[in-house]
Amino acid sequence: MPETLELLTSYRAFEGWQKQYRHSSKSLHCPMTFSVYLPPQTNVGEKVPVVYWLSGLTCTDENFSTKAGAQRIAAKLGLALVIPDTSPRGEGVPDAEDQAYDLGLGAGFYINATQAPWNRHYTMYDYITKELPVLIEQTFPVTEQRAISGHSMGGHGALTIALKNPGRYASATAFSPIVNPTQCPWGEKAFSHYLGDDRENWKSWDTTELITSRANPLPVLIDQGSDDSFIDQQLLTENLISACKTKQYPADIRYQQGYDHSYYFIASFIEEHLEFHHRYFNQ
Amino acid sequence: MPETLELLTSYRAFEGWQKQYRHSSKSLHCPMTFSVYLPPQTNVGEKVPVVYWLSGLTCTDENFSTKAGAQRIAAKLGLALVIPDTSPRGEGVPDAEDQAYDLGLGAGFYINATQAPWNRHYTMYDYITKELPVLIEQTFPVTEQRAISGHSMGGHGALTIALKNPGRYASATAFSPIVNPTQCPWGEKAFSHYLGDDRENWKSWDTTELITSRANPLPVLIDQGSDDSFIDQQLLTENLISACKTKQYPADIRYQQGYDHSYYFIASFIEEHLEFHHRYFNQ
Repeated sequence: MPETLELLTSYRAFEGWQKQYRHSSKSLHCPMTFSVYLPPQTNVGEKVPVVYWLSGLTCTDENFSTKAGAQRIAAKLGLALVIPDTSPRGEGVPDAEDQAYDLGLGAGFYINATQAPWNRHYTMYDYITKELPVLIEQTFPVTEQRAISGHSMGGHGALTIALKNPGRYASATAFSPIVNPTQCPWGEKAFSHYLGDDRENWKSWDTTELITSRANPLPVLIDQGSDDSFIDQQLLTENLISACKTKQYPADIRYQQGYDHSYYFIASFIEEHLEFHHRYFNQ
Repeated sequence: MPETLELLTSYRAFEGWQKQYRHSSKSLHCPMTFSVYLPPQTNVGEKVPVVYWLSGLTCTDENFSTKAGAQRIAAKLGLALVIPDTSPRGEGVPDAEDQAYDLGLGAGFYINATQAPWNRHYTMYDYITKELPVLIEQTFPVTEQRAISGHSMGGHGALTIALKNPGRYASATAFSPIVNPTQCPWGEKAFSHYLGDDRENWKSWDTTELITSRANPLPVLIDQGSDDSFIDQQLLTENLISACKTKQYPADIRYQQGYDHSYYFIASFIEEHLEFHHRYFNQ
């Protein structure tokens, strides 16, 4: 194990191990905490593929770890789960002046900020796509097979990251993703601070724009609760459905009747998402 | 729905509903919050049996609701879950002078206190065995079939309540229960405050004592993590194993290797517990 990796907690779960680590991130210039689930197959020396989970606004690595019930399925299918934090943290890391929940701490949006004071630490894209996978693949009994999933802001992260990195992820899924951030208040606020006022620079961080301009075909599954109060203002699911239709992009985008934006929704369908990733790992 | 029952939250989960209510408790003399999971079978008019879940020290109705992953199994088996709080709450309800986690708020121990200032509000036994089931059975689409389960202090509650009420519960299960509270620091502290100094009065609230003195046979399953740091000082699992052996009481008490006292342990085995209850509902 790299010297810089500090084990914070360790729990037996479904005959595997749920572990939480802290390390010093070179790309974010701060200490970062992440969680890993290692399924029982790794107890006997097997290497397993990895599903990365990106969480939504205000979350840390703990929300998905404790609430989604994903470890049971990962144990059954033989998948490792890697759950990073949602932004840089700690001394010297800037936050929104009013400590708003949708900018700064807990709101990294999985992009590389170009504007001061954000650009030194808010480079979550590099952290998730480069630094973290290298660390994971050097440290844990995993293969180089990767998939990516996430919720809300993390659903935006999972989809954009997969689309921007052809071949790196076998599949991508999302719950309630922000699919057109250049056109919604959450995205406009974050991108104007992190990326500046030139909206042209925003487009490469927007799922609907990426599908429209240069779709990299990979298996995509999206679940969206029909009773999610953020659909019309923030998530803009219909914009992505239109773009996929226009471009004949084969994403499977499903409305789930009566479900909202909560972890109860994620828990209800995480089994289908992990089975989706598992299917494409084996192709 | 009774006028006094206020709906606080409602989430679609596994095609059923996770709901949280507040009501004015007559037995506890304070407002109480509880959670209910209604499985999809109830959407189409079916009545289902109820599993009561009693939580441990410091918990509310939310820990089990969000962390155990029980709704998936309840949906599959057609069981309602009822998850009460762990003590009376609110204005006028006394707490430990030093706000200790193991006395007062969050630490009701599922007994009827006899000593001032506790005896007006700390009558969780009456609440769980009388007031709450009446409310549940009048309000929700459930049968009069009941089972009971719990964790740690709630495991103590589940076992003592089932043993003290022959015929009311089809089965009882527990995770990491405090099985001999008259002999451990948590129990000695709580019982001396709630019940007074005469230890004879404590015995009817102690699982090991109940098994020893007047075992009421019902199906019992207990899971205990082998790496639980509270075993030797607080849980005293071996004392119950000895009493069951002496009395030839057929409880199934299992050590689970490597598991601790956390909700990851509960999540790992809750499916087996709900299947255990389901089996006895159908006999």
